[in-house]
Amino acid sequence: MTLLSTLSTSGLDPERYVRDLVRDIPDFPLPGILFRDITPLLADPKGFHVVLDSLAHCFMGEHVDAVVGVESRGFIFGGALAARLNASFVPVRKAGKLPRRTDRVAYSLEYAEAELEMHSDALAEGARVVVVDDLLATGGTAEAARELVHGQGAFVAAFAFVIELDELRGRDRLLPLPVFSLLHY
Amino acid sequence: MTLLSTLSTSGLDPERYVRDLVRDIPDFPLPGILFRDITPLLADPKGFHVVLDSLAHCFMGEHVDAVVGVESRGFIFGGALAARLNASFVPVRKAGKLPRRTDRVAYSLEYAEAELEMHSDALAEGARVVVVDDLLATGGTAEAARELVHGQGAFVAAFAFVIELDELRGRDRLLPLPVFSLLHY
Repeated sequence: MTLLSTLSTSGLDPERYVRDLVRDIPDFPLPGILFRDITPLLADPKGFHVVLDSLAHCFMGEHVDAVVGVESRGFIFGGALAARLNASFVPVRKAGKLPRRTDRVAYSLEYAEAELEMHSDALAEGARVVVVDDLLATGGTAEAARELVHGQGAFVAAFAFVIELDELRGRDRLLPLPVFSLLHY
Repeated sequence: MTLLSTLSTSGLDPERYVRDLVRDIPDFPLPGILFRDITPLLADPKGFHVVLDSLAHCFMGEHVDAVVGVESRGFIFGGALAARLNASFVPVRKAGKLPRRTDRVAYSLEYAEAELEMHSDALAEGARVVVVDDLLATGGTAEAARELVHGQGAFVAAFAFVIELDELRGRDRLLPLPVFSLLHY
């Protein structure tokens, strides 16, 4: 889905603007992994706004009850997007970090295994939720977040990512739910 | 410093509004620790906006180059505050998470020891920086962040916290720099 093409009336090409702010780091965190570093994007106030505007634009005219952000980089985009959408922010965290009763899901990452948690009372039944993270790779994390959301009787209206690694086909695991990604690699 | 008293013209008592959204959790993460849970605050869009407005209000009319947010909860408030102030967002992370060359500082927490890192090229010399975290406890984390900022020739214009635990006297370690905290316990 191309989100950004419809946004600009200023001559700015938002997709290109954001893409130029993502740096490729070979062999991080493990040999053979090409890491997409979004810290230069965060360092650029305009770039960060373009991302937030683009993601918010996807939900224009739609009510969003909660933005679920996945620890840790999903917190940066998710918190700011929740503020922009006037929605709740709900953190999904690694095991043991949340202080109250949690729901827990095991999942596998591109290069690790882990568990994610969400407070058991985080979402109201029927809540419309957007799950936000910086990156869609294999989709394991996003799938775990979906499971946590659906387990509380809420539903994922959409997934929103800054970057999608197309060749890993994470999107296929999330279908038929809408998946918005600003940049495709 | 009372920030919130000057903010409201609507009859809302912002400090009380935010305080009612912080939940006390005894014995987390360890016995004897009273944890201040800010997830109900994040779940309340108005509460989150009151926090962001209050923190942004501290810097009204002042230029802020960068907001430095400390992993992980500092990312939620820091990212959104950076967007609101139109400043760069710079993440300070636990060791091994940042992909490029980093500066590193060891520090001790209220109940652990750890290292924090920031990308070595994150801040320009002379940059005016606000360090944001959810909580000021003993001040070890904030002091480590200050060391990282000053090590790059930038300077901390202020620290901004949602909650300050007064009895732990973290503020004393940060003086004479300005410390803004919304809630005092």
